[in-house]
Amino acid sequence: MKAAVLHRYDETLTAKEFVSFEDVVDPRLENPTDVIVRIGGAGVCRTDLHIVEGIWREKSSVNLPYIMGHENAGWVEELGKGVTGFKKGDPVICHPLVTSGHCLACRRGDDMHAEESVFPGINANGGYAQILLTGARSLIKLPKTLAPKDVAPYTDAGLTAYRAAKKASRHLLPGQYAVIIGAGGLGHIGIQVLKALCAAEIIVLDRAPGALELARGCGAHHVVKADGNEVEAVLSLTGGRGAEAVIDFVGEGDAIAKGLAMTRNAGFYYIVGYGGRIDIPTIDMITSEKTIVGNLVGTYAELVELMALADRGLVDLKTREYPLSAANDALHDLHHGRVPGRAVLVP
Amino acid sequence: MKAAVLHRYDETLTAKEFVSFEDVVDPRLENPTDVIVRIGGAGVCRTDLHIVEGIWREKSSVNLPYIMGHENAGWVEELGKGVTGFKKGDPVICHPLVTSGHCLACRRGDDMHAEESVFPGINANGGYAQILLTGARSLIKLPKTLAPKDVAPYTDAGLTAYRAAKKASRHLLPGQYAVIIGAGGLGHIGIQVLKALCAAEIIVLDRAPGALELARGCGAHHVVKADGNEVEAVLSLTGGRGAEAVIDFVGEGDAIAKGLAMTRNAGFYYIVGYGGRIDIPTIDMITSEKTIVGNLVGTYAELVELMALADRGLVDLKTREYPLSAANDALHDLHHGRVPGRAVLVP
Amino acid sequence: MKAAVLHRYDETLTAKEFVSFEDVVDPRLENPTDVIVRIGGAGVCRTDLHIVEGIWREKSSVNLPYIMGHENAGWVEELGKGVTGFKKGDPVICHPLVTSGHCLACRRGDDMHAEESVFPGINANGGYAQILLTGARSLIKLPKTLAPKDVAPYTDAGLTAYRAAKKASRHLLPGQYAVIIGAGGLGHIGIQVLKALCAAEIIVLDRAPGALELARGCGAHHVVKADGNEVEAVLSLTGGRGAEAVIDFVGEGDAIAKGLAMTRNAGFYYIVGYGGRIDIPTIDMITSEKTIVGNLVGTYAELVELMALADRGLVDLKTREYPLSAANDALHDLHHGRVPGRAVLVP
Amino acid sequence: MKAAVLHRYDETLTAKEFVSFEDVVDPRLENPTDVIVRIGGAGVCRTDLHIVEGIWREKSSVNLPYIMGHENAGWVEELGKGVTGFKKGDPVICHPLVTSGHCLACRRGDDMHAEESVFPGINANGGYAQILLTGARSLIKLPKTLAPKDVAPYTDAGLTAYRAAKKASRHLLPGQYAVIIGAGGLGHIGIQVLKALCAAEIIVLDRAPGALELARGCGAHHVVKADGNEVEAVLSLTGGRGAEAVIDFVGEGDAIAKGLAMTRNAGFYYIVGYGGRIDIPTIDMITSEKTIVGNLVGTYAELVELMALADRGLVDLKTREYPLSAANDALHDLHHGRVPGRAVLVP
Repeated sequence: MKAAVLHRYDETLTAKEFVSFEDVVDPRLENPTDVIVRIGGAGVCRTDLHIVEGIWREKSSVNLPYIMGHENAGWVEELGKGVTGFKKGDPVICHPLVTSGHCLACRRGDDMHAEESVFPGINANGGYAQILLTGARSLIKLPKTLAPKDVAPYTDAGLTAYRAAKKASRHLLPGQYAVIIGAGGLGHIGIQVLKALCAAEIIVLDRAPGALELARGCGAHHVVKADGNEVEAVLSLTGGRGAEAVIDFVGEGDAIAKGLAMTRNAGFYYIVGYGGRIDIPTIDMITSEKTIVGNLVGTYAELVELMALADRGLVDLKTREYPLSAANDALHDLHHGRVPGRAVLVP
Repeated sequence: MKAAVLHRYDETLTAKEFVSFEDVVDPRLENPTDVIVRIGGAGVCRTDLHIVEGIWREKSSVNLPYIMGHENAGWVEELGKGVTGFKKGDPVICHPLVTSGHCLACRRGDDMHAEESVFPGINANGGYAQILLTGARSLIKLPKTLAPKDVAPYTDAGLTAYRAAKKASRHLLPGQYAVIIGAGGLGHIGIQVLKALCAAEIIVLDRAPGALELARGCGAHHVVKADGNEVEAVLSLTGGRGAEAVIDFVGEGDAIAKGLAMTRNAGFYYIVGYGGRIDIPTIDMITSEKTIVGNLVGTYAELVELMALADRGLVDLKTREYPLSAANDALHDLHHGRVPGRAVLVP
Repeated sequence: MKAAVLHRYDETLTAKEFVSFEDVVDPRLENPTDVIVRIGGAGVCRTDLHIVEGIWREKSSVNLPYIMGHENAGWVEELGKGVTGFKKGDPVICHPLVTSGHCLACRRGDDMHAEESVFPGINANGGYAQILLTGARSLIKLPKTLAPKDVAPYTDAGLTAYRAAKKASRHLLPGQYAVIIGAGGLGHIGIQVLKALCAAEIIVLDRAPGALELARGCGAHHVVKADGNEVEAVLSLTGGRGAEAVIDFVGEGDAIAKGLAMTRNAGFYYIVGYGGRIDIPTIDMITSEKTIVGNLVGTYAELVELMALADRGLVDLKTREYPLSAANDALHDLHHGRVPGRAVLVP
Repeated sequence: MKAAVLHRYDETLTAKEFVSFEDVVDPRLENPTDVIVRIGGAGVCRTDLHIVEGIWREKSSVNLPYIMGHENAGWVEELGKGVTGFKKGDPVICHPLVTSGHCLACRRGDDMHAEESVFPGINANGGYAQILLTGARSLIKLPKTLAPKDVAPYTDAGLTAYRAAKKASRHLLPGQYAVIIGAGGLGHIGIQVLKALCAAEIIVLDRAPGALELARGCGAHHVVKADGNEVEAVLSLTGGRGAEAVIDFVGEGDAIAKGLAMTRNAGFYYIVGYGGRIDIPTIDMITSEKTIVGNLVGTYAELVELMALADRGLVDLKTREYPLSAANDALHDLHHGRVPGRAVLVP
């Protein structure tokens, strides 16, 4: 099969070619619960750039060369002997984590904290390819309304945004405010999910005017240009008190300190983006009684929920397609902030 | 002042005049926390008909003559010495319960279960009048967008629908279903609240085509004529399994048994309307693991939340105005199913 | 193998022999996820008497002869090819439901509402035998502190009591009250679980002095003889208001009406026992804002939790052992109220 | 009256006399809801040392001289005209915050986040005195089992520990672990509350052998000397995974980083002590999906709940009494780690 293969790390992200488009051996079924999926689309994620930079080298312990791509959707091609409920040709979206389902976390539905799991595209070969090896427990059948290439980025970008926004929606009451920092690939889904799941007023912050425009189209009630005065702007919009929920899709630079500063007392700061540090005196955490919440993708059931929203048109993913052979263009465009919404590689 | 006064019960609701429009003595401030409100509008509720019938005689222990009207909004006219934060002329909506705020239920925000309380229009004189005596703890200031006569029915009809729909929204996930039985004064608010607070698909049942039309306008995704086959219709819409939440605004006749039958296993049946009986074998409750939830109006904070929804146009109350002198017309129209949405008396 | 086999229903429970102790063919592995368990102990449940009576005939659709016994523990004897994580000789307790794990309910950890499942001892052959066919997803390894014959009844009686008491513990605050109706096989576990999971004051009702004594030993703070005045007794103990939670392990006769009557306004009535009917006017549900909660066994994770309590000595199951050949004695003793705690058949 | 008055800050805590025992003018009723309480006992808190150091100077904006003491209990001496439900001589414990009860936070029961409040002993004169001015909304009547001087420290130290432990108890399931860092005045209450409210295994860390002994007496299942290897010790006790809840009553030095390190993935780190900083890379918060929770005292209802635990003997406060005239001894003993449990000043 054809695949876009990573052969070496590039800490400065200055290479012209991050990955190499080439022929590789097809993956094969190994275990009774394995499934081979023909890729319809593979999302391109900022995490892929971090992988190229070598940031995940130790955490994932993969050996190069390997194939990135952890946002995958396509059609069932071949099924292990122990798999029931699917047949060749079924359109599917793949939950990013392949779990065995035996541990207590899995039995509680908390897939992301499984004791045994594989994360294709992170610590195993992924979907920058024509064919993907995954497991039956990762598959969700798609309704006819949703084509694989249009929904692939929901598996990670969408699901991560969904889970954080869903957590916030559990405590956001009418009359309260939610701030979303960053209206990119994740953020523009987060806005739509919040709007579908609660009645909070939504304030969106971004540096890029195009992103703010996208945010408005996604349903933001207020947009604020992140020009240095965004804390004041949010305080002004919220009667001086800040927002009951702040969802930070940036997670680096001054976004973190500002995100915490615009969180109302007794409010919640959800951290999704990464790269920076949270650094706050304990006395400030106590007198404000704020809560800081880490967020890690989402469960299988949550991806089913997100597909239900997509099926009904309550979230709409903005994508830009690239042929698989142009994976480097997609990665460079993402690196330079030229992708509105989310890039998808189509084999 | 002028008031519409109840002088005698009428168990058959056949009298031409249920109440008498006449002059009565103005109410006066008695306690430091008392407030006099000039009525802008008073909602007419099915409970008022039940009061006329004598159903509440023992529960409320009022002596006739007295003044009904428990859905009140208007303007502050006079304030007790201990009241701060309000001034004459402030537009206000009145939470239906006047509590002292001292008991543990009040300290937990659970006003409806206060140990000490007065319910004007139920167990004290109410708002079918020009002037109402209430307490400071019942007042919520209205934003400029909302006129007292347009929002009065939110205090009971709206708040009751809000609380039940809010409870349901806490567990309704995308991909799940909610049934609303009855699209009248409460039901049409319940539809809008559910839609604002969660992403469940909403199915509305009613006997009246006009009510189903109103339901569609309020955002129902499916409407079903209650013609005897409504259980089958709901099962058919929900893949044979029923709805995760059923909110029953009728609560009498076959609505109850049918409502329980269309509740999915592990689902919730919310009872709001009354008049009938819940009658179900314990084995059915156990093998289905259903939950039956009683609902009693709502808290002060919930009325504030509902006003936030109304202020932002996320709920819209359909009202028909009657002059206070025509209170009997309003009661008769309600009795004969001729009021779309909610009737309001305007002094 | 030897087994105690049910050959015919006995609606009046007057036969001398309900089951027949005889030789039957050993069960065999059929699917890759099947497991054969050598029985160490099988609990005897009131549901077994109901099966003998024919009450479950239509719900379970089994054909006679068949083998009852849905509370099973023992040692792994043989493993299907797809089973990992267990080896021959492992001591195990069996969750009562064998699920495939594919449906959304399973993926959310809600095993009891699986779309595909088998319930050995209810709708398939169970553990009144030397050997049981079950599935890998039902197995929980036992710690060395717990012998199979001592814990078998936890799988259903214990788990059902655990789940209901756990639900109650989520809302019971210090200063509040819980009533437990019936201190038998389930009730005496419920008392201990409540005590371990919350600080509510526990009031236990039973007709039998021996049961009340057992209740005291299990940690009940107050015991009340169910002699007709139990509602008054509970009201008197709770300042006239009733208990925030009532868990009814009887569910028939006057227990239901009395249980609801002793539930405080805004409180929860948990129904576990069955046989009778819940019958209550909707107006009473509304003015009291009570909630009625059905309870169906419990999840796999909850059985793991219960085993953690047992391992640490926080719950202690009172059992009486009978040889498998004396299954009829056990059933008769249970039928005539002569089993303190729970009967267990040991092959 | 007599009082122990703070006349000047002492940033190095090296003065012999922090406060001066002297005659001051009695406080007087000013508002209808004011209450004068004769002090039975006033707890001495580490925050008082921080006040002496000047750390709270800007946050509290008091002018010296003033009277510290924010943990107060005693007897009602005089009541404002608007106060009902209390009479002279009633034994009472004072919630630390005096609120008006009008704002939405108060109406939701969330007293600590009231928009209008006074915190006697922090930003107004407190209880290091014979007489205290407070408000009716802060009073809780004591049962006969509890003497004011024995319970005074519950109002802040106890309540803060209670709220944090209660939050943790909401998600701690049987089979899970809770770590408590610091077994001093707050920690030893936290242990007892956790034990009363859930069945988690409790691991307590402290540097002082005496504190660990106190922890064992309070019900800790495991104690660990904080000698530098405490993270490893906790990981070893928890199967290498860490604890589902860590409650940090120290909040400075290496306690914070270690507390976060011993929190299990998807677990909660509760910060109660203060002085240091939380400093963690966002990527670690995300891959671990941990939550960091700030904690600020507790609500009025929570103090009622804590008194219910104390009344039933489920928590027991270890106190050392000092005469009010020896306030400096108490402060010095606390500063030098010589107070087991909590110091109380008795006028």
